[in-house]
Amino acid sequence: MTGHVSRRRFLGTLGATGAGAALATSGLAACSSSDDAKSAAGAQQVSSAVDQTVPFRGTHQAGITTAVQDRLVFSSLDVITEDRAALAHLLETWTTMAEAMTKGDLVPGNQGDPVAAPSDTGEAYGLPSSRLTITIGFGATLFDGRFGLESKRPKLLQAFPPLPNEVLLPDISDGDICIQACADDPLVAYHAVRNLVRAGIGTTTHRWMQFGFGRTSSTSTTQATSRNLMGFKDGTNNLKSEQAEDVDTFVWVGKEADQDWMRNGSFLVSRKIAMFIETWDHDSLGDQENVIGRVKDTGAPLGQESEFEAPKLKATDSAGELVIPADSHIRLASPSANGGIKLLRRGYNYTDGVSSSTGTLQAGLFFLAYMNDPNHFVTVQKNLAKDGLNEYIRHISSGLFACPGGLQPGETWKDKLFSS
Amino acid sequence: MTGHVSRRRFLGTLGATGAGAALATSGLAACSSSDDAKSAAGAQQVSSAVDQTVPFRGTHQAGITTAVQDRLVFSSLDVITEDRAALAHLLETWTTMAEAMTKGDLVPGNQGDPVAAPSDTGEAYGLPSSRLTITIGFGATLFDGRFGLESKRPKLLQAFPPLPNEVLLPDISDGDICIQACADDPLVAYHAVRNLVRAGIGTTTHRWMQFGFGRTSSTSTTQATSRNLMGFKDGTNNLKSEQAEDVDTFVWVGKEADQDWMRNGSFLVSRKIAMFIETWDHDSLGDQENVIGRVKDTGAPLGQESEFEAPKLKATDSAGELVIPADSHIRLASPSANGGIKLLRRGYNYTDGVSSSTGTLQAGLFFLAYMNDPNHFVTVQKNLAKDGLNEYIRHISSGLFACPGGLQPGETWKDKLFSS
Repeated sequence: MTGHVSRRRFLGTLGATGAGAALATSGLAACSSSDDAKSAAGAQQVSSAVDQTVPFRGTHQAGITTAVQDRLVFSSLDVITEDRAALAHLLETWTTMAEAMTKGDLVPGNQGDPVAAPSDTGEAYGLPSSRLTITIGFGATLFDGRFGLESKRPKLLQAFPPLPNEVLLPDISDGDICIQACADDPLVAYHAVRNLVRAGIGTTTHRWMQFGFGRTSSTSTTQATSRNLMGFKDGTNNLKSEQAEDVDTFVWVGKEADQDWMRNGSFLVSRKIAMFIETWDHDSLGDQENVIGRVKDTGAPLGQESEFEAPKLKATDSAGELVIPADSHIRLASPSANGGIKLLRRGYNYTDGVSSSTGTLQAGLFFLAYMNDPNHFVTVQKNLAKDGLNEYIRHISSGLFACPGGLQPGETWKDKLFSS
Repeated sequence: MTGHVSRRRFLGTLGATGAGAALATSGLAACSSSDDAKSAAGAQQVSSAVDQTVPFRGTHQAGITTAVQDRLVFSSLDVITEDRAALAHLLETWTTMAEAMTKGDLVPGNQGDPVAAPSDTGEAYGLPSSRLTITIGFGATLFDGRFGLESKRPKLLQAFPPLPNEVLLPDISDGDICIQACADDPLVAYHAVRNLVRAGIGTTTHRWMQFGFGRTSSTSTTQATSRNLMGFKDGTNNLKSEQAEDVDTFVWVGKEADQDWMRNGSFLVSRKIAMFIETWDHDSLGDQENVIGRVKDTGAPLGQESEFEAPKLKATDSAGELVIPADSHIRLASPSANGGIKLLRRGYNYTDGVSSSTGTLQAGLFFLAYMNDPNHFVTVQKNLAKDGLNEYIRHISSGLFACPGGLQPGETWKDKLFSS
């Protein structure tokens, strides 16, 4: 391992190297090239992402209440070794790598030796950290006995019951470990996951991966609500990081944790929700608004003026009909219809192109939500059985992962699962 | 049709509408809500894209020499009607729609009538034009006789011969018509293609679609060179829009056009180039640099100091070996190895997730290049038969499209093909 080397400062330090040439610098920590400032300035033009770094360590993992970044790369991996030590070592390595990348540093290790493969794959050279967060979670299958981790399994981490409107594809569901990389620059997020997956070769295999091209939720009152592919504002009433009491009540695992490692952690539910885009686009504005329960352009609850007004769920029109219909999405998903439950969502729009057999768009919402009890999701999803939206969507993948609490200085993800 | 309505100004104008309620405004051109400015400001936070508009009309189509935007949505469509008039009408409709969307306006038509489907699908409400360009091209199959267009086919528009290192998948190759949407915001590009495809339902079917998450080429000297998924700077020697003479020589179809509609147009070659990422990542830095012919971090040609120095293709080292190896990519792709040919590339990184059978990354480069003679591409691609890079890549789709010249005021894409 060499010292920390910034991707930005790295540029130009190996300019005289070339294949087979002698290394001009004895170590990568030396960044003295006169081209350095110029290269960094040039690199800045590549990305419009804000050059901000989100702290990797803290009470909680980053990437949960962090104001949602623009782009997502989400991967699920399965452990293929039977060697408990290899898994533990990988979790340690991943921690070091993730911490470096979230700072905008190179993946630590050899970078300039011409006869070795570079430790960093290089596509993010010169790019700022772009608010990258890397969040890890563990699926129930990781605790099945292969690694002696049975006693470490949180009781709440278990398979979901069958839920309404789902046709789940096993190839893109579940997994032993998930990695969520969010950043304002998609290349930075992709680079992060690619390098972590690469480090796992021999220990893990890449089960599935999802790219999200635009956020559909906001997790901070500083962010405007964005729109999903139905054209509606999504997540107006999402839990926001500024609502500290609600976040504690619904997101973070507290003293009730049956596993120390889950204290200050959270459960992550992933659901790939395919939209039947052509059917939706054929629907009238009035029906679309009735299905959602909001005005399409402003996002206001039906019958009201502006986005953030509370829905008047009991209001009726002159004919005595509910203004927000009985089967509208915001009614059935609302806390008042679900025993007060609030989910912290951070979903993304996705596209998988078109179906080669039908020509229809393969696109929708990659739903991610954090909660301190997975039953919250089950409750809401069951209540959505009669959702008018079900005519236009289908859940095609599902994942549930236990995301440990944040890392203290010197601590690694290995320590969460493998300390005594 | 109503008048032009900006997506930015639209917000708030229908706030009092709701499903079934009376329209508060008699026409969508009226934008008088007091919430208007606030909503627009909120929307600005959603996107970091620069609020710039690229002119839709001109001597040439936009999206060719336009400084490459960050994101791409590229689609290929087949015409399924036998009705020549329906195709002509669609080309006219598409022109109107594309012009509006590139200005950041709503798709023209009905928007606020609750009993009709909105003309604009809505996911880009509030977003700026984001430098959106929409570029159209016609495949050879459009001129096969179904629409009486045989005589309109440019002689140079014909199927490629078999080329090295290709295993082409028909489902994602070719097509009657292509639409290239580039924008700095991916949601704006996706919205554009989705709405055009929607307008084609009944006349066209969506053959294939490719999302590009980051540009790998620059087409302007004002842009820094970005990196492809091999971690190398890509397109250092790309033709730049500022090189007016070369652009005229190699990109624009001039007086030699055998079809008037191709004057000031260009031929577009699309190639989906899969990268064997894991194999590449396993390769040593020295071999990677020899394969490309450049230093990985700086992008300098091997043996030189900085990115934009001209490669010294004849230079040898002390052992008499070529510094830039005989099979290196930049040597074989260089103008000097191809009779002086220069291509204008505007490629993008793509990801299709992972293979569910092998767990390997499905990712690479979606290559797009414009030229006034498709034989230029054939020449270069044949010369790449001995490219060392072929060990790490494979071409898996191909397209060739004739992109007409730009539109004059009042002119439409229909006029290009269907005028006497």
